[in-house]
Amino acid sequence: MTSVSTPPRYAYLGPEGTFSQAALLSLPQAKAAELVPAVTVADALDAVRRGDADGALVPFENSVEGSVPRTLDELSSGTPLRIACEILLPVSFALMARPGTSLGDVRTIATMSHAESQVRGWLRSHIPDARFVASSSTAEGARLVAAGQFDGAVGDALAADIYGLDVLARDIQDNDGAVTRFVLAVPPGDVPPQTGADKTSLVCYIADDHAGALLEILTEFAVRGVNLTRIESRPTGEGLGRYSFSIDCEGHIDEARMGEALSALHRICEDVRFLGSYARADGAAPTVRRATADGDFAEAAAWLARLRGTDLP
Amino acid sequence: MTSVSTPPRYAYLGPEGTFSQAALLSLPQAKAAELVPAVTVADALDAVRRGDADGALVPFENSVEGSVPRTLDELSSGTPLRIACEILLPVSFALMARPGTSLGDVRTIATMSHAESQVRGWLRSHIPDARFVASSSTAEGARLVAAGQFDGAVGDALAADIYGLDVLARDIQDNDGAVTRFVLAVPPGDVPPQTGADKTSLVCYIADDHAGALLEILTEFAVRGVNLTRIESRPTGEGLGRYSFSIDCEGHIDEARMGEALSALHRICEDVRFLGSYARADGAAPTVRRATADGDFAEAAAWLARLRGTDLP
Amino acid sequence: MTSVSTPPRYAYLGPEGTFSQAALLSLPQAKAAELVPAVTVADALDAVRRGDADGALVPFENSVEGSVPRTLDELSSGTPLRIACEILLPVSFALMARPGTSLGDVRTIATMSHAESQVRGWLRSHIPDARFVASSSTAEGARLVAAGQFDGAVGDALAADIYGLDVLARDIQDNDGAVTRFVLAVPPGDVPPQTGADKTSLVCYIADDHAGALLEILTEFAVRGVNLTRIESRPTGEGLGRYSFSIDCEGHIDEARMGEALSALHRICEDVRFLGSYARADGAAPTVRRATADGDFAEAAAWLARLRGTDLP
Amino acid sequence: MTSVSTPPRYAYLGPEGTFSQAALLSLPQAKAAELVPAVTVADALDAVRRGDADGALVPFENSVEGSVPRTLDELSSGTPLRIACEILLPVSFALMARPGTSLGDVRTIATMSHAESQVRGWLRSHIPDARFVASSSTAEGARLVAAGQFDGAVGDALAADIYGLDVLARDIQDNDGAVTRFVLAVPPGDVPPQTGADKTSLVCYIADDHAGALLEILTEFAVRGVNLTRIESRPTGEGLGRYSFSIDCEGHIDEARMGEALSALHRICEDVRFLGSYARADGAAPTVRRATADGDFAEAAAWLARLRGTDLP
Repeated sequence: MTSVSTPPRYAYLGPEGTFSQAALLSLPQAKAAELVPAVTVADALDAVRRGDADGALVPFENSVEGSVPRTLDELSSGTPLRIACEILLPVSFALMARPGTSLGDVRTIATMSHAESQVRGWLRSHIPDARFVASSSTAEGARLVAAGQFDGAVGDALAADIYGLDVLARDIQDNDGAVTRFVLAVPPGDVPPQTGADKTSLVCYIADDHAGALLEILTEFAVRGVNLTRIESRPTGEGLGRYSFSIDCEGHIDEARMGEALSALHRICEDVRFLGSYARADGAAPTVRRATADGDFAEAAAWLARLRGTDLP
Repeated sequence: MTSVSTPPRYAYLGPEGTFSQAALLSLPQAKAAELVPAVTVADALDAVRRGDADGALVPFENSVEGSVPRTLDELSSGTPLRIACEILLPVSFALMARPGTSLGDVRTIATMSHAESQVRGWLRSHIPDARFVASSSTAEGARLVAAGQFDGAVGDALAADIYGLDVLARDIQDNDGAVTRFVLAVPPGDVPPQTGADKTSLVCYIADDHAGALLEILTEFAVRGVNLTRIESRPTGEGLGRYSFSIDCEGHIDEARMGEALSALHRICEDVRFLGSYARADGAAPTVRRATADGDFAEAAAWLARLRGTDLP
Repeated sequence: MTSVSTPPRYAYLGPEGTFSQAALLSLPQAKAAELVPAVTVADALDAVRRGDADGALVPFENSVEGSVPRTLDELSSGTPLRIACEILLPVSFALMARPGTSLGDVRTIATMSHAESQVRGWLRSHIPDARFVASSSTAEGARLVAAGQFDGAVGDALAADIYGLDVLARDIQDNDGAVTRFVLAVPPGDVPPQTGADKTSLVCYIADDHAGALLEILTEFAVRGVNLTRIESRPTGEGLGRYSFSIDCEGHIDEARMGEALSALHRICEDVRFLGSYARADGAAPTVRRATADGDFAEAAAWLARLRGTDLP
Repeated sequence: MTSVSTPPRYAYLGPEGTFSQAALLSLPQAKAAELVPAVTVADALDAVRRGDADGALVPFENSVEGSVPRTLDELSSGTPLRIACEILLPVSFALMARPGTSLGDVRTIATMSHAESQVRGWLRSHIPDARFVASSSTAEGARLVAAGQFDGAVGDALAADIYGLDVLARDIQDNDGAVTRFVLAVPPGDVPPQTGADKTSLVCYIADDHAGALLEILTEFAVRGVNLTRIESRPTGEGLGRYSFSIDCEGHIDEARMGEALSALHRICEDVRFLGSYARADGAAPTVRRATADGDFAEAAAWLARLRGTDLP
């Protein structure tokens, strides 16, 4: 009798043909894995929470449209999850339709609202009369087009293969150079080791809504030389003017300056949710300010221990 | 021949029956005005920019869903507009359908994505199999339901009257106490006078993306005792990690501390777009920190002028 | 033959009859000790450095005259010493002369320059023609008067007994309520345990003379809720504009917020000289800001250790 | 009858032969002036306050000994005076004695305490048994030596000429490169015009002794890009822990960033005493940080005025 290992199982924001699937396929660990489409970001993440999937690949932010609020909010609440890695994909939209459809025939266009706003200029100038219909994903738009409900879909050209559509136009995005960032969310556990070019994500909930709470948070990072790469406020749902802050910063939780900054936030915030430390997709090494490298912290800790007459921590 | 004055004309995010229309109707100046629905936030604002409307009433943020990115982005770019006033409406959603439809018949629900996320809990527990279809506004959803395209609409109950629908359920929002904030955008011109309980809105574009730019911006406010009530980062579209900051703060541009803070931001930022000073809808008076009242600034200016041997500014 | 333990030996800024001697006599540990006058502050401290004394009692600052630069500079350089405790003495000056001298006979007054400036008003109004002659201490002035070199001495009335002088006037200080602070300097070793009302003294040398170095130092304290009670710049002797900062702050090195602040200073400064943690003479308990108590730091450290998957430090 | 103009009259810390006199003689305006020695710094300044002198030349700080507390305190209180200019003199001390005295004969050395500490090393190694006697100035020491009261004087070699002494040794200062800074104090009036390399001096009294008052003061400078070149705390005489801050900074009161910073300090401090803007003796041009030049402030003021619909200040 032989023992067999189960292949890993990854959920992604589906249906088949989404950019999320494309991002997932770019990961080595997805090669031998079972890939499961989910209808919504929440469904994909819940599959991990329930143990039905080992990870969930979901869109996080886009250089044109900003963050995906649903992803931010789902990661910020509920059973904790961790970001295991990030993937950057250049945005490339295709207009797809059922075989035989010409550009002039397209009256309704089904796509995700994030996608629509990135091709609006092209659509206005080429098919100004076409009406946008929101679908829950770009691939779902393609599926609805294949099902005959709408005329055209805007999304990844791979969806054309999957749903038997023709590509009427490629690279119709208004903003060349746009990039979408995806993350792979996994159950909490060991943090991936430092790579030298890492990012840390977290969410800070402020204890009371005193003026200057954000200034305090930023100061805790600044004083320890930790650079932020993204900060966004999100309503907590408890009334206008009540926010949490979703933050990405350069560095890894195992680095001393990051650890001290996170601890400080834990002290001053009502709650801090650590969303993970992981390799940066762009491989950019952090700027380490004078006197904030691990060696500087270690030397200072040794000095303090000597003064206190204690052993080193 | 007698001279007649033309009544003012206000655009709002339509179609008829939206919360934006309800918000507009709450304004005294709308009583005798011509109210014109617009298909999108951009269309409503562009009507003002073109001179086709004297103002545009659009949704700005929601205590559950956060800001309306489209409104933020449209106000932040293009021909400048000003916020003349803000309106707060408690969120109250109704489920509407064509007469004769029972709850069990509702398979598709057309509403705005912002609205859907605020009634998701109710929908899951009452009609778990109903599918959400995104419409460009809640009233547009009602219109599509009246036209027979979908089964149910979620929005302001007034839309039922307008489109001949029945209300199947009222107050189905998951989060009681939710509030939506609307603004009336007008052409630049005279700023409304101080009321003693004012708010100022602006957008800051940072000159280069140096770490600490946001900390600098917050410090310019803090050092002059100006409290922020909202701050949100928005991508500039020039790449991940590039943001502008959309800010509301307590006080009026004619107040000294606010004027000095705005001037400082104008110096250190690549661009600052002033979106207006206007009365707070909640009438809350600002907290004025020690030494930051107009009298304090006037006394300091007089002292400086004496030292410099110049006349007072 | 029996073994005898040697009594401790303390140096003080002499000669006999100085306020420093009075301060030393107020300490319990001085009761059975040998007390040795030293001619200068440097001599007193050097006696400890050479091992000829177990401690040195020297004046540190005065609420009217400010710090004693010589003491600050001697503690800041050379072989390190520690402050074991502080003593506060109310300032009370007497005018003393040889028996038979009347006020009108006093033409020359020998005293320390620090003392002279605190009785100047009284001298001007009572003996305006008397000339001040600087002596190295108030008691040395009394000794010189006894030796017949000068007419009057200003100092602690105890000196009158010691040197056989009469007290012509008591409490002649211009500023009632003035206080002098003395410190007992000892060899480096174990820091006295926390008492709940402690002070920590240190000297910071800045690495390069960049603008904002002092702001950085103060921010490291402020961000961790450590209050300063004294900060003074002293020239380093390397040119105008080059300073070190002599600092007293509330709290004990064994407290977490103080330890983290000291470590941060060690990282960012060229050098930090720890001068000791010791009980406050006034017994005033520190103000502990929200989220900066030892328990807050411990909880944050435990949280970080869990996230890192490491044992607690 | 002809009208004659009276030559100006300047007081200096005397008697004749002090470094203060040497500094005064380096000023062009002193050439045709009447120079009047004063016994103390206070006397020199009071002569200006009473109208008996047009200016007073007094020592301010020394790169080895630090500031001259008496000068700082006298300028900080009483009838206001202004610093019209600063003079830097390299420190060069000579040992002087009556003709016929050899080094071995010198048992007592009369000089100012500031001077003594700068030649202590030389004295220790060359005439270890000589005793220091404090005089109110270096020249007064020379005068006393000439009068036969003491054996040697330490001061400017010019004093030897004036008092008929011989120079036993030149350049006996321990620290080569030491510099003393003098200031010319005048009655308040027009501030000297900008030169492009100016310094501004002031004294800040804090309103209440809250922790962080100094941090606030420094932040007001930092946020407007004003660099400090000297900051010193001085006791206010109201008890330990109560300080004023004596500050020099780069720039001129007529510059916008300086004016705004001074006004801010006037608002937040209990009192701010402006001690003058004047040309730097070293001619070093200030570092002007991005966005803090006068043009930046003018542009921001014009922008604000347009927004407010007011005329420019």
